[in-house]
Amino acid sequence: MNYDQIFNTAIDQLHEEGRYRVFIDIMRTKGAYPNARCFHGHNGPKPITVWCSNDYLCMGQHEKVIGAMENALHDVGAGSGGTRNIGGNTHLHVELEKELAQLHGKDSALTFTSGYVSNDATLSTLGKLLPGCVIFSDALNHASMIAGIRNSGCEKRVFRHNDMAHLEEMLAAEDPEAPKVIAFESVYSMEGDVAPIHAICDLAEKYNALTYIDEVHAVGMYGENGGGISQRDNAAHRIDIIEGTLGKAFGVMGGYIAADTRIVDCIRSYAPGFIFTTSLSPVLVAGVLASVKHLKSSSVERNAQQQAAAMLKLKFAEAGLPVMDSVTHIVPLMVGDPIRAKKISDILLAEYGVYVQPINFPTVPRGTERLRFTPGPNHSEIMMDELTDALVEIWDRLDMELRKAA
Amino acid sequence: MNYDQIFNTAIDQLHEEGRYRVFIDIMRTKGAYPNARCFHGHNGPKPITVWCSNDYLCMGQHEKVIGAMENALHDVGAGSGGTRNIGGNTHLHVELEKELAQLHGKDSALTFTSGYVSNDATLSTLGKLLPGCVIFSDALNHASMIAGIRNSGCEKRVFRHNDMAHLEEMLAAEDPEAPKVIAFESVYSMEGDVAPIHAICDLAEKYNALTYIDEVHAVGMYGENGGGISQRDNAAHRIDIIEGTLGKAFGVMGGYIAADTRIVDCIRSYAPGFIFTTSLSPVLVAGVLASVKHLKSSSVERNAQQQAAAMLKLKFAEAGLPVMDSVTHIVPLMVGDPIRAKKISDILLAEYGVYVQPINFPTVPRGTERLRFTPGPNHSEIMMDELTDALVEIWDRLDMELRKAA
Ligand SMILES: Cc1ncc(COP(=O)(O)O)c(C=O)c1O
Ligand SMILES: Cc1ncc(COP(=O)(O)O)c(C=O)c1O
Repeated sequence: MNYDQIFNTAIDQLHEEGRYRVFIDIMRTKGAYPNARCFHGHNGPKPITVWCSNDYLCMGQHEKVIGAMENALHDVGAGSGGTRNIGGNTHLHVELEKELAQLHGKDSALTFTSGYVSNDATLSTLGKLLPGCVIFSDALNHASMIAGIRNSGCEKRVFRHNDMAHLEEMLAAEDPEAPKVIAFESVYSMEGDVAPIHAICDLAEKYNALTYIDEVHAVGMYGENGGGISQRDNAAHRIDIIEGTLGKAFGVMGGYIAADTRIVDCIRSYAPGFIFTTSLSPVLVAGVLASVKHLKSSSVERNAQQQAAAMLKLKFAEAGLPVMDSVTHIVPLMVGDPIRAKKISDILLAEYGVYVQPINFPTVPRGTERLRFTPGPNHSEIMMDELTDALVEIWDRLDMELRKAA
Repeated sequence: MNYDQIFNTAIDQLHEEGRYRVFIDIMRTKGAYPNARCFHGHNGPKPITVWCSNDYLCMGQHEKVIGAMENALHDVGAGSGGTRNIGGNTHLHVELEKELAQLHGKDSALTFTSGYVSNDATLSTLGKLLPGCVIFSDALNHASMIAGIRNSGCEKRVFRHNDMAHLEEMLAAEDPEAPKVIAFESVYSMEGDVAPIHAICDLAEKYNALTYIDEVHAVGMYGENGGGISQRDNAAHRIDIIEGTLGKAFGVMGGYIAADTRIVDCIRSYAPGFIFTTSLSPVLVAGVLASVKHLKSSSVERNAQQQAAAMLKLKFAEAGLPVMDSVTHIVPLMVGDPIRAKKISDILLAEYGVYVQPINFPTVPRGTERLRFTPGPNHSEIMMDELTDALVEIWDRLDMELRKAA
């Protein structure tokens, strides 16, 4: 039994497949985002433009958010010092949960240390509370939902991405008396497409299933108050559990669910991933509270993001770059090969000061490796033109074909 | 199939067993800890003294920590904006991991969003990387390790708490060629006792097992530089993976492992709980970095904590209160019944302004419900006397017996 050998083999395999991940060492510059500093393989930090952040609306740099965090830092201190039950339940947590419940039109909400943990803890606990439960999961669901479903120990049925006929077929095949949960996302963040929420809810009603939606890539960005696609589509009241993150459009860190009080109370009382961990730092909670409140009443950031995304998609298409179909703020460019995707990303960083990470397996299926751009309110048209020109040059250099201009 | 009924029953059961948890709504006051404000069932916040925080050394209020967080807030912004691989790897993360590796005398370290996630992600991934692995787990291991072991899908053997003969018996019974991991804690935080690290490492060497230690309740507080019990006992070099939290003695939030580079690289590359989540906010990372550095060279806080704990134990014993055997900074008082433990805690808060949470199942086994005090550098002798008097009065009021004074 040689442990070193096993660990070596595991790493060697990643190198062979061209998907060993090298983290680019950067530091954002507050107030100047998307400009940042890169510490990677250079003498001293070098300026770069960030094109792959999920701080979609630059709320992580917003003065209201920074101000609220600074106040909390001086008023309360750095950490909560305990789990929610033992010393770590600050008044800020209570306020934030009220705000999030309201945002989604639900009675209650519950915060977690991350969106990942909220999915894992909620789905695994839900599955354990419902004896004999079957969970129906969209084929493109995020790793954190897959983990939660797996850890629930429930039977799992994977339906083809956004395929309602397939979902119905699977629902109809189960015992009508068995508890059922349909788990899906609203915005699929690597494709940029959107779930047919009402159609899923119709099926859930027909087959008496609970619905669980991950709105991680939609909260703050869609709906009149940033309540996500379920708000935009006027469907929130039809969904049992809405899950979101505090680390993307809201710009800070953490995760949550919103649901009726009974369900929230069950997760609060039974989920080890919620119970046995130090609660979110009150500094983060204060920042999120300011962010959620701001985006509830301001649509400036949302609109500017949508305009930036539309403009970048158009510029890519006009240049013949293989921009994927996306009906959202996500702008993915298909490459289809991990080594090439990494190469393009490396050239962009080294020669153009453009930072966009290649997206490889297991984040996306093998053979669909891509670059994923997230233009936001602060990405200017000049930046987009520079980016498009750079990509066209690199496409040419690597002998990759451009489409006929759209 | 009636979902409401299932959820109702789950909650009703907690009420019946007297272990439905009510979160006390508090807010610490920076600079005045352990004094805080309580928002619970009162008109406006009421002053309280906190006796159950895991901000053991008050580092969450330390000016170096607050200052570093404030700088990061203004230099970098609120959140990291991405996963470690995609946009969320800041230079601060890189520095912190260097610092943590050094703290434990290891080549590498890796940060997670919490100590819970570090245990869950590392143990589950380790188990999956080692085919046919058997994990040996101390009977009192924390829920996060139990989750990780369960999610690894490995065979698990639970040895009696700190019982080396039992552990050896179990090790000897397995195939010598099977990969093995022994997972245990250094300080058991509900008992206050300590693992025999060298004896465990002896067995690990004899049976070719990897060792995994949770030092969550020891890092910052034991060892010359705060490297934990493994540093104090000069055993860190014998342990394969050391896990810790950034949310207790270090006063902020987050978790980590330290190990040799190959192991860290495997977890970094294969653990979904590490890969698919927004990285720790750079604000938190900056705070932790300052905290770890400070506690590396300063022993003032550690010594003051030990003195406070010794004094409180003595005062409890002299008053005849049932203080449990503890060789560490933890001061647990056995009650043995969930309803009584809650009652004492309620009276302390309502009448004495003392906040100590009752500890119930599943945090501790049924029938061993207790109150758990965590005196720190800022708990004065006057506070201890007031607390002891209050407890004696309540013990009397509830007709509970006091021991013969020690
Ligand atoms: C769809 C989806 N759900 C959940 C998460 C996890 O959220 P968080 O980053 O807050 O852990 C992510 C990404 O990180 C995601 O893309
Ligand atoms: C022994 C032990 N390990 C791990 C954890 C989890 O650490 P964190 O609070 O950073 O999630 C805790 C408590 O919270 C603990 O007591």
